[in-house]
Amino acid sequence: MVSRLRVAAFGEVMMRLQVPGYELLSQASSLNYSFSGTGVNVASALACFGHEGFLVTRLPDNAVGDAANAALRKLGLSTEFVGRGGSYMGMYFLENGFGARPARVTYSNRQESSFNTAPTGSFDYMHIAQGIDIAHFCGITLAMNYAVRRHMFALAEAVKGNGGTVVFDCNYRPGHWGEDGYAKAKPFYEKMMRLADIVMMNEKDAMLILGLPTDKVDRQEQLLDLIPQVARQYGISAIAGTQRTINGDNTHSLLGYLFKNQTFAFSERLTFAVYDRIGAGDAFASGIIHGELSSFDPELTVRFAAAAAMLAHTITGDTPMSSESEILRAMSKANGDVIR
Amino acid sequence: MVSRLRVAAFGEVMMRLQVPGYELLSQASSLNYSFSGTGVNVASALACFGHEGFLVTRLPDNAVGDAANAALRKLGLSTEFVGRGGSYMGMYFLENGFGARPARVTYSNRQESSFNTAPTGSFDYMHIAQGIDIAHFCGITLAMNYAVRRHMFALAEAVKGNGGTVVFDCNYRPGHWGEDGYAKAKPFYEKMMRLADIVMMNEKDAMLILGLPTDKVDRQEQLLDLIPQVARQYGISAIAGTQRTINGDNTHSLLGYLFKNQTFAFSERLTFAVYDRIGAGDAFASGIIHGELSSFDPELTVRFAAAAAMLAHTITGDTPMSSESEILRAMSKANGDVIR
Amino acid sequence: MVSRLRVAAFGEVMMRLQVPGYELLSQASSLNYSFSGTGVNVASALACFGHEGFLVTRLPDNAVGDAANAALRKLGLSTEFVGRGGSYMGMYFLENGFGARPARVTYSNRQESSFNTAPTGSFDYMHIAQGIDIAHFCGITLAMNYAVRRHMFALAEAVKGNGGTVVFDCNYRPGHWGEDGYAKAKPFYEKMMRLADIVMMNEKDAMLILGLPTDKVDRQEQLLDLIPQVARQYGISAIAGTQRTINGDNTHSLLGYLFKNQTFAFSERLTFAVYDRIGAGDAFASGIIHGELSSFDPELTVRFAAAAAMLAHTITGDTPMSSESEILRAMSKANGDVIR
Amino acid sequence: MVSRLRVAAFGEVMMRLQVPGYELLSQASSLNYSFSGTGVNVASALACFGHEGFLVTRLPDNAVGDAANAALRKLGLSTEFVGRGGSYMGMYFLENGFGARPARVTYSNRQESSFNTAPTGSFDYMHIAQGIDIAHFCGITLAMNYAVRRHMFALAEAVKGNGGTVVFDCNYRPGHWGEDGYAKAKPFYEKMMRLADIVMMNEKDAMLILGLPTDKVDRQEQLLDLIPQVARQYGISAIAGTQRTINGDNTHSLLGYLFKNQTFAFSERLTFAVYDRIGAGDAFASGIIHGELSSFDPELTVRFAAAAAMLAHTITGDTPMSSESEILRAMSKANGDVIR
Amino acid sequence: MVSRLRVAAFGEVMMRLQVPGYELLSQASSLNYSFSGTGVNVASALACFGHEGFLVTRLPDNAVGDAANAALRKLGLSTEFVGRGGSYMGMYFLENGFGARPARVTYSNRQESSFNTAPTGSFDYMHIAQGIDIAHFCGITLAMNYAVRRHMFALAEAVKGNGGTVVFDCNYRPGHWGEDGYAKAKPFYEKMMRLADIVMMNEKDAMLILGLPTDKVDRQEQLLDLIPQVARQYGISAIAGTQRTINGDNTHSLLGYLFKNQTFAFSERLTFAVYDRIGAGDAFASGIIHGELSSFDPELTVRFAAAAAMLAHTITGDTPMSSESEILRAMSKANGDVIR
Amino acid sequence: MVSRLRVAAFGEVMMRLQVPGYELLSQASSLNYSFSGTGVNVASALACFGHEGFLVTRLPDNAVGDAANAALRKLGLSTEFVGRGGSYMGMYFLENGFGARPARVTYSNRQESSFNTAPTGSFDYMHIAQGIDIAHFCGITLAMNYAVRRHMFALAEAVKGNGGTVVFDCNYRPGHWGEDGYAKAKPFYEKMMRLADIVMMNEKDAMLILGLPTDKVDRQEQLLDLIPQVARQYGISAIAGTQRTINGDNTHSLLGYLFKNQTFAFSERLTFAVYDRIGAGDAFASGIIHGELSSFDPELTVRFAAAAAMLAHTITGDTPMSSESEILRAMSKANGDVIR
Repeated sequence: MVSRLRVAAFGEVMMRLQVPGYELLSQASSLNYSFSGTGVNVASALACFGHEGFLVTRLPDNAVGDAANAALRKLGLSTEFVGRGGSYMGMYFLENGFGARPARVTYSNRQESSFNTAPTGSFDYMHIAQGIDIAHFCGITLAMNYAVRRHMFALAEAVKGNGGTVVFDCNYRPGHWGEDGYAKAKPFYEKMMRLADIVMMNEKDAMLILGLPTDKVDRQEQLLDLIPQVARQYGISAIAGTQRTINGDNTHSLLGYLFKNQTFAFSERLTFAVYDRIGAGDAFASGIIHGELSSFDPELTVRFAAAAAMLAHTITGDTPMSSESEILRAMSKANGDVIR
Repeated sequence: MVSRLRVAAFGEVMMRLQVPGYELLSQASSLNYSFSGTGVNVASALACFGHEGFLVTRLPDNAVGDAANAALRKLGLSTEFVGRGGSYMGMYFLENGFGARPARVTYSNRQESSFNTAPTGSFDYMHIAQGIDIAHFCGITLAMNYAVRRHMFALAEAVKGNGGTVVFDCNYRPGHWGEDGYAKAKPFYEKMMRLADIVMMNEKDAMLILGLPTDKVDRQEQLLDLIPQVARQYGISAIAGTQRTINGDNTHSLLGYLFKNQTFAFSERLTFAVYDRIGAGDAFASGIIHGELSSFDPELTVRFAAAAAMLAHTITGDTPMSSESEILRAMSKANGDVIR
Repeated sequence: MVSRLRVAAFGEVMMRLQVPGYELLSQASSLNYSFSGTGVNVASALACFGHEGFLVTRLPDNAVGDAANAALRKLGLSTEFVGRGGSYMGMYFLENGFGARPARVTYSNRQESSFNTAPTGSFDYMHIAQGIDIAHFCGITLAMNYAVRRHMFALAEAVKGNGGTVVFDCNYRPGHWGEDGYAKAKPFYEKMMRLADIVMMNEKDAMLILGLPTDKVDRQEQLLDLIPQVARQYGISAIAGTQRTINGDNTHSLLGYLFKNQTFAFSERLTFAVYDRIGAGDAFASGIIHGELSSFDPELTVRFAAAAAMLAHTITGDTPMSSESEILRAMSKANGDVIR
Repeated sequence: MVSRLRVAAFGEVMMRLQVPGYELLSQASSLNYSFSGTGVNVASALACFGHEGFLVTRLPDNAVGDAANAALRKLGLSTEFVGRGGSYMGMYFLENGFGARPARVTYSNRQESSFNTAPTGSFDYMHIAQGIDIAHFCGITLAMNYAVRRHMFALAEAVKGNGGTVVFDCNYRPGHWGEDGYAKAKPFYEKMMRLADIVMMNEKDAMLILGLPTDKVDRQEQLLDLIPQVARQYGISAIAGTQRTINGDNTHSLLGYLFKNQTFAFSERLTFAVYDRIGAGDAFASGIIHGELSSFDPELTVRFAAAAAMLAHTITGDTPMSSESEILRAMSKANGDVIR
Repeated sequence: MVSRLRVAAFGEVMMRLQVPGYELLSQASSLNYSFSGTGVNVASALACFGHEGFLVTRLPDNAVGDAANAALRKLGLSTEFVGRGGSYMGMYFLENGFGARPARVTYSNRQESSFNTAPTGSFDYMHIAQGIDIAHFCGITLAMNYAVRRHMFALAEAVKGNGGTVVFDCNYRPGHWGEDGYAKAKPFYEKMMRLADIVMMNEKDAMLILGLPTDKVDRQEQLLDLIPQVARQYGISAIAGTQRTINGDNTHSLLGYLFKNQTFAFSERLTFAVYDRIGAGDAFASGIIHGELSSFDPELTVRFAAAAAMLAHTITGDTPMSSESEILRAMSKANGDVIR
Repeated sequence: MVSRLRVAAFGEVMMRLQVPGYELLSQASSLNYSFSGTGVNVASALACFGHEGFLVTRLPDNAVGDAANAALRKLGLSTEFVGRGGSYMGMYFLENGFGARPARVTYSNRQESSFNTAPTGSFDYMHIAQGIDIAHFCGITLAMNYAVRRHMFALAEAVKGNGGTVVFDCNYRPGHWGEDGYAKAKPFYEKMMRLADIVMMNEKDAMLILGLPTDKVDRQEQLLDLIPQVARQYGISAIAGTQRTINGDNTHSLLGYLFKNQTFAFSERLTFAVYDRIGAGDAFASGIIHGELSSFDPELTVRFAAAAAMLAHTITGDTPMSSESEILRAMSKANGDVIR
């Protein structure tokens, strides 16, 4: 690794309450819990790669917040920029799917969470910006409410102003924006795009959120047509993303791309068995960021990111846990026998 | 759904004692328990579809019976027709199979169960018959003993006499009838066939239990040849069933048929991964009954029933848990991503 | 039992998320969940005594609400008056205490729960009132918000108007009312007191909420002085409650009283080991209600209620599970050996 | 230890299905299982003391029987005299009590168990008798049915005829004998008493089963009056037993006695906390047998047996697991700190 | 089965500490433990086939050793030749792999284990040799240290000298021998080869350990070239082994061979899903030994051994648990439905 | 709290493998694991009180070491001074006691642990000493071997030389020193006593390790006689310790003392129920250190430390988890009801 950088992610920590095995909530009587979120996942994946990971968030000052805080530390994150206040955490219930039955997520109320109700003054943007090299932001946060969006823009601007790198993951979730969601979202997304150095997105985001036109029909051709437009229009150095296919035998396939210096690099199309699908996109993002930070060449970066995403599907929980060497081994070998 | 009907199933409730994971009974030290049985499965599947489900059975008046009773209520069944008395429940141990190693079921003694020793007067046939629209019976009950068979015929006759619909699932289990089982079983099966409006069976039942001759060799041709004969001979409005294939990669395939108005309707041959195979036949039966009750056209009914059976393979426990809308979604889509 | 009555409780269902054993939330990784609430506890305890128990509440129409609904059925409650709508359930985390370390409860946001956001028209007061003999209400509901209080008064008035019996449990929780809570709460409590036939309260409620004066200093003398005043002033037929003491050896002691026909009846002071303290007050209330419904003499009623409360401390979960015969046995015997 | 003897116990192996923690069967969803029975407990306790333990029993030839067989081996028993055949095992469900709520045992049907239906020829009495030094029998077996009683008498006579020692534990369970049980039981008990060298019993057995008269009222005086009569009348060398008291604080107290050579020896009255009460009587019996086999003086024997019983209350499961040295340490010390 | 033979295995018992499910050690908080080792696996597999299995090993005389001893008995092994002494057991942690993420084994220090520090005189070679028909040795033991190698050679010579059969499984693990491992290992391997009647190995062992030259490139041709040379050079009656392939869909394929009487016999190439890969090689070895002991013809022996290995992949834990009849059924049938 | 200090502890991290519930290792099949050690416990308790906690130790660079590292972070410790290298961790098995049956600890081999084999140069004494205000050492480390003792002395001297405070906990464990242990230990203990500012010890340490004479017989009088001598002789500012009594009802009693400025301060004798006894002494030590760091008066310090120790007995695991405010509440109140 070239050097150890200070990477912060801004975002909500959620409590994941997962029914063990394959029972439904109405059948079971216990839940496994963990704490995650796009920011948690990206920052701790980068900590696994040897960087110093920070989370910029706000947790309630009670037993649930304490548990979240301990979980962040366990994942290797610095909690220096974690505020405490408010009363609640966002939570979601997860019932695992099996084969023909998809997994099911049920959210509790996030609007009242400590993070989404963080008052003015909760985050010292300048202090944070000065303490880090790179900051990661996510479209899910953008969808929450006015207050949290304001924090997000202010922090992104402070990072930019301090010469730091801004990463933005579009991560558009229709359920969060409601009716006419794309129209509502567009101005906020555009604002973030203009601040961002590295963006995670794909052709659908370009068409639906940013409203860019294309006469291509094929998904791959749309990508080749639109992503360069986006890069040019918003002045973005690197854009990356994945295309996922779910196969008939319940395996998934993933193809990653990275557009940089006017050129596309693609990973192999990886096909693999899936144990825990949630958080795999964040693993891809962290692979891209690590490749960029480490000055990998684009081919290596996108292959590394795709392998990181593949391995994240084999790990329990939302948060990627693989080291750089484990990902490099997964890139070079077929499925292996026991490692003794 | 067209209307909410009152559906009763007559049958034994069994306690399923399942070794968690893939250990053998001689390796493990704990068991998961649930309560099921063909009647439980069919009636509660129909309750999931919005009907009012009843079980006609008898449970011991002790802590085990209390637990069974609570489980029935949890599944959405009315326990209005559940008698309490006797001392024991039928139980079975289940060791999960994996790949080349098949699952293994070990029964405890069912002959002394509260249900199978229900004395005369245990069930008020007329009262029950007047309270319901449709009643489901199963060939497993027929195999138990004289006393329980007598209850079964009396209840079926009362339902028929009250203008209700009688469903009979052949469900022939060689182990329960012993030597010369088919010959012993035939008169009882014939009696139920004559009372039944809807019958669950396949070509083997026609040949082996009812002794119908065919010169066809292929399984499918036998079906086409024999089922119409059965319908005619016993005056049955609808006959349905499945053909199961176990594939080399441990997936199963299922093809459902429904014969009605002199015509066969078939489902697609569905192929899927299997989590819990037990009770899937009951899911198919409940799908057929729901389609018939809801006046689906036969094509839709059999496709709905096959999809219900497929989903039942992905659910923990014997008892199907899918709603009508979940089954319809499974019919229309390939394997899906997380539902958020 | 004299007769089987129809008993409804109006109140929120909460999801209890309990850390198993004696770990803290920041140490553990799994939770046991169950569904409870004062109304759930009282109605299902009465169902255990042979009455028909109903819950009047509102649950979200998602997987969490389905699980709650199944749990209510399992407890023997009719869900006929359970509405479905809204998006969230109230939840609380429970970390068990041990000896010198008290148990700790952390609430999630209840204000946005399906119950506490039930819109006008959610409950058909008249239909419910006509379907039941007795209705139970709780001061916790009173503390929530304007909308739910309005439902509560309207239902209590409808029950009263239909000749039903109204039970009100004061259950004042300082944390829910905030600053100047007693003053805020007083008018609402007085309104419920005037509607109630049976009230659960103690001397502190009389002094602090209702503002009744007394010159007594001793707790017991305050009770003897104030409760008759309350009964007279608000026209209440029966008032009952408990005084709890926590002893040095971690046992608890409980003394129950019942004031009726101008006379106090008291239970023995029971001392016992505690396994799960939450919900024991609801067991006492259900014992009082059952005694009143069954025309027990007051001495028997209060002794029965105290024994019911004692047994509730030995049961896992908030909800009492003891039958009438188990409580009678606990009243007559010392700690027993194994029951075979 | 003086010498390693070959000790066999004749009796049924039962499967114990225990609800973990303090939930009821109607609340929980899993069970812990183990295999025990008076014979199992006594023979394996003696194996813990360094003797060679055998069980004479019959297990079904299926997965449940395999699991029982493996459990016996794990307990250190030789399965040389374990027959395989029949189809079922006796089972019982155990719900733990807590404080004021007693534990509850619910049996499944034992009459059809492999052991209780063992046909003529199942046990080679002479071969077994020649292979062992001492055999243990239990009154529970006597209560089962004609066939198993016949095996029991035949084996006891063979042991006696071969110069072995016969131990008989009265273990009268009213529930197994039904109405007029004592009268029904008397002739069978008398037959065993005449064959026995060592008998486990107390004053109640003398009065109620054997019908011996006494004019004493106090329990202890009855013991002093009756046990010598029993020893004389039936020609028994050693009689031993315990008196149990359950205290108000949920501790139990135990006083052991041993009558031998016309003299009584008593243990201290031990008072202790109880974790798992079942099987403690078998620990006492095994302590007496070990003391007798090892030629301890009677005082030591009865103190050793009482301490063995006390420790058995602290061990999970029915079967005692303490070594001789652990029991000796428990006799000499108060409750100790961690042993590192 | 032709006859019941006395089979001993010499080797270390290890404690396997396995993270349940698919979590990493840094994510989980509990471990499942069991006791295994090549010797344990082979001897207990042969006990499952009806032979009398012995383990020659040494366990610490503490609670961990007691647990190991009980586990050996549970597996059906005689502990007659198990010495007790020393202080430690070898242990290894196992994190399950999933799909693209391989399983991971982390060893604790084995050099100080009771077995690997067994002093002179720990094993009575002659007494053991006289008590058994066949003895199994493993190359892992050879890798440990001087003292244990000396015990190994002495016991093998004693067995040979008493007319017993010596089996040697090469089981070369590079990690145990360190740098220049093949050269270091060669003399010890050659010594065992000369003593052995049956050897488990493949073409790589011949080339790398024994240094035999071949001009073949293809794996199968190397086998055909080298194994006859080995048999001739070291005077071995039977040599057997497997070639494993890990397929893209995470299934494994296994091809077994047996060289005997100058002729090769091969199994089908079996392809199957894998639940627990560890110990499958031992199942193959035990199948070969059983076939040889039972005078199966070579074709049957190698097919039986391959099926035994296949089933071992479906069993929890390192130790094979399948009976002869289960293996024969797996040889004759495709994947089966539930066995009721 | 007065101020946030930087507190380091030097010591081994051990993996605790605990049998859940009250089973023995030979009965159970799973273990709960956590990571602890005197240093871990003291430093993380101080982190709970708001200080910055560091551990100076060495962990293997494998999956077990990763898990330990994550656990340290979760406890709130900085891992800045945690070296990685070597291959093994010290481990111990813990079987919980119950009542008359004491808990049992079985160690694995610690001498080969990464910490106990740390080579020269593993710790940068000066860098560490400059980064901290106070360092904690423990007599257990002193018992290990020459190499680790050398690191210990060098670090203590560096801390002292940099003006930091040295804390030494005598923690003499007879099992670690073997025969003539006190004599062997004395010179090393004396060396640490001379370096220490704060020492944890009691009268036995003074007599047995340091060999100080006293003519007192009573334990308390010995303390009053000897501790001032120790303080004077070795120039120690503060000496503290506890006397533990185990009561007949399984509660423990604890009396703490603090000797400072020629004066003794004592806590109340606290009596309490015990859930997890291990690590309570470390809680006391951390309370003393916190009181000293915060300039509490001696009375408050010793009462705070004793309450911290009492609460540590109610917490799962070795490591104290209570905050300053929780300890202050436990000091002021009797056993409390649920905290909502």
